[in-house]
Amino acid sequence: MQASKPRIALVLGDPAGIGPELVARLLARAETREAADVLLIANEDEVVAGMQAAGETFGCVCVDTPQLARRFRNGVVLLRCGTRPDAGFRRGESSAEAGRYSLETLRAALDAVDAGIADAIVFAPLNKHSLHLAGMRTSDELHWFTRQLAFEGPVCEFNVLGRLWTSRVTSHVALKDVAGLVTPEGVMQGIELLAAAIRASGTASPRIAVCGLNPHNGDSGSFGREELDVIGPTVIEARLRGLAVEGPFAADTIFLKLQGEHPAYDGVVTMYHDQGQIAMKLMGFSRGVTVQGGLPFPITTPAHGTAFDITGQGRADVSAMQMAFDLACRMSALRR
Amino acid sequence: MQASKPRIALVLGDPAGIGPELVARLLARAETREAADVLLIANEDEVVAGMQAAGETFGCVCVDTPQLARRFRNGVVLLRCGTRPDAGFRRGESSAEAGRYSLETLRAALDAVDAGIADAIVFAPLNKHSLHLAGMRTSDELHWFTRQLAFEGPVCEFNVLGRLWTSRVTSHVALKDVAGLVTPEGVMQGIELLAAAIRASGTASPRIAVCGLNPHNGDSGSFGREELDVIGPTVIEARLRGLAVEGPFAADTIFLKLQGEHPAYDGVVTMYHDQGQIAMKLMGFSRGVTVQGGLPFPITTPAHGTAFDITGQGRADVSAMQMAFDLACRMSALRR
Repeated sequence: MQASKPRIALVLGDPAGIGPELVARLLARAETREAADVLLIANEDEVVAGMQAAGETFGCVCVDTPQLARRFRNGVVLLRCGTRPDAGFRRGESSAEAGRYSLETLRAALDAVDAGIADAIVFAPLNKHSLHLAGMRTSDELHWFTRQLAFEGPVCEFNVLGRLWTSRVTSHVALKDVAGLVTPEGVMQGIELLAAAIRASGTASPRIAVCGLNPHNGDSGSFGREELDVIGPTVIEARLRGLAVEGPFAADTIFLKLQGEHPAYDGVVTMYHDQGQIAMKLMGFSRGVTVQGGLPFPITTPAHGTAFDITGQGRADVSAMQMAFDLACRMSALRR
Repeated sequence: MQASKPRIALVLGDPAGIGPELVARLLARAETREAADVLLIANEDEVVAGMQAAGETFGCVCVDTPQLARRFRNGVVLLRCGTRPDAGFRRGESSAEAGRYSLETLRAALDAVDAGIADAIVFAPLNKHSLHLAGMRTSDELHWFTRQLAFEGPVCEFNVLGRLWTSRVTSHVALKDVAGLVTPEGVMQGIELLAAAIRASGTASPRIAVCGLNPHNGDSGSFGREELDVIGPTVIEARLRGLAVEGPFAADTIFLKLQGEHPAYDGVVTMYHDQGQIAMKLMGFSRGVTVQGGLPFPITTPAHGTAFDITGQGRADVSAMQMAFDLACRMSALRR
C-alpha cells in the first residue's frame, strides 16, 4: 500500500515570505503525511525558521543528495538544497538572494521529477520581483518551467477553487491588447487545455462554460462582435470535437452559477486575467490554487502571494497550500 | 410629521416581467407605507395582476389625473396610467406594447416630479428589448431620462450594494474600445459624480477607491501604462480638489476590502462594465440597486432584470426593490 502513495516534491517558495511557515503547518498535519510521501527540497535552517514561525514541527530524514533521497521512500525526506546568506534572508522583503534560492530549489524539484523520485511539485508562494532580481528572464514562473523543461506544447495557468477550474485566453497583457488576442485558436486552446486538466484531476467528462468578452455578451453585436465572430463559432467547433462546452455567457452573471459545492460547470474559460480573477478571489481568496497547466506532470501552488506583511508571525492561513498539496496528490495518483 | 415624508413615484417597469408582483409585495409591507407616501403610476388591471401573482394586497385611492393625485397626499395613491392591450400583456415576453407601457408610465413619473407631486422615482425592472421595440432610440434608460429631461450635465449609472457605491468610466462599449475611453476627464467625472451621489445619500465625506485598468495594475508599466499615465495622476488631481480618493488599486483584489457591512471605502470607480459588475453581482445579486446618477432628483431601480423565466409565479425576491425604494426615500429626505 505504502508504495502506491504519490511522492510530492515540496519547496518553500520565496523564503522571505510565508512559505516556510506554511510548509511547517502543512507537514505537521498527520493527514498530509498520510496522503503522500514528501521530498522536501529546502535549506534546513529555513525549514527550522518556518517551524518556529508556525509553532509547529514535523519529523524528517535529512539527506544531501538525490541518490540518498531515493533510498528513503517513506514519510518526509528533507533534501538539503538552496543557498542561504550568512545573516539569513530579510523577512518581508524581495531580494536577489531570495529569488536565487527560489529558483535553485525549484530547479532541484524539476530534477527530482526527471529522476523519477517525485511525481509532482508543490511550491509555496514566490515573489516575482525577487525572481526577476535573481535573473529570471520569463514573464512568470509558468514560462520559466516551460523553458527549463524545454517543453514545446501549449501551456496555460489555471486557477482552481474547490471543484471549479478556470483557464484564460489572455493573461498578463494590457487590457487594450486583449480583444486582438481573442482568436479562434486561442479560445480553442483555452478550452482544450482546461478539459484535459480537469480530466487529469479525475472528472471524466468535464462540463465547460466559456465567457464572452464584452458587457452583456456584446448585446447581439451592439457593442463588440467577438461573441458572434470568434467565441460562439469556437464553442460550436469544440462541441463538434466532442467536448461538453457551452457559451459564450455574459461574464457578470456566469459566476453566480459556479458558486458553492456543486457548480453548474466544472470549468470556465475566461478571456482575460481580471475577468476570472475578480470572481475567483471573491469566491474564495483563501482557498484558491494555481496549476501550471499543460506541462507533463502536476505543478501546483496556492493562488495567494508571499504575504510579506504578515510573514514570520505565524498567522498565515494554510488552507490554499493544503488544497494545492491535495490536488497534486490527486492528479499524481490518477496519472499512475 | 406626515407632511415631511418623501413622496415616491413608483412604476411597474416592464409589465410582462416581475415588476407588478414586486410592487404588490413592496406596498403590502407596513414599513414601506410608513417610510413614504407613494404615487403609484400604473394601469389598474396590472396592479391587480401583480397582487394576484404575489398573493399580497394593499389598499389605495385611485385617481385619473395628476391634479387629483395632488389632493390625496397620504398613503398610496394610484394614478391610472398606461395602455394595456385588450388581451393583456403576454407574461415573460418582450413586446412593443410592453415597451410603450413602460415609457408611458415613466414619462408620467417624470411629469409628476416636475409638477412637484413626487420627490423621486423608483421603477421595477425594464426590458431593453421591449423599450427598443417601442421606439426608444437611446442606448439605455439613463440616456432616455437625460433626453426627456433635456438635462445637459454629465450622467453615470451607479450600482449600490448596501453601503457600497460604484460608478464606471465606460459602460456599454466594446472591450476593445475601453482603454481609449479611459481619459483624465472620464476618470475625474467618474470620481466627482460618485462623490456627489454618495454625499446625497447621507455620507458627508465619502472615501473613494479607484480601480486600475490592467491586470496587477499593469505591473509598473510592464503590461499597460494607463495606471501611470492617466488614472494615477487623476487620483492625485482629485485629492488636490479635496476628495478622499485612493488608487489605482488592482481590480482583482480591491473588492475583497469592500465586502460586508463595513467596507473600507464608500465608493469604487471602475473602468469598465464587467470590472464592477462581476464583483457586485457576486457580492449580492439579490440586493443590488441601480441609481440613474447625475440627474436633478433621485431615480432608482433594482439592479436585476425582468426575470421573464419566473414571472407571474410569485417567487420573485423583493429585496433589491425594497433597497431601491429605501435609497430613494433616504436621498429624498436629505434633499429637502
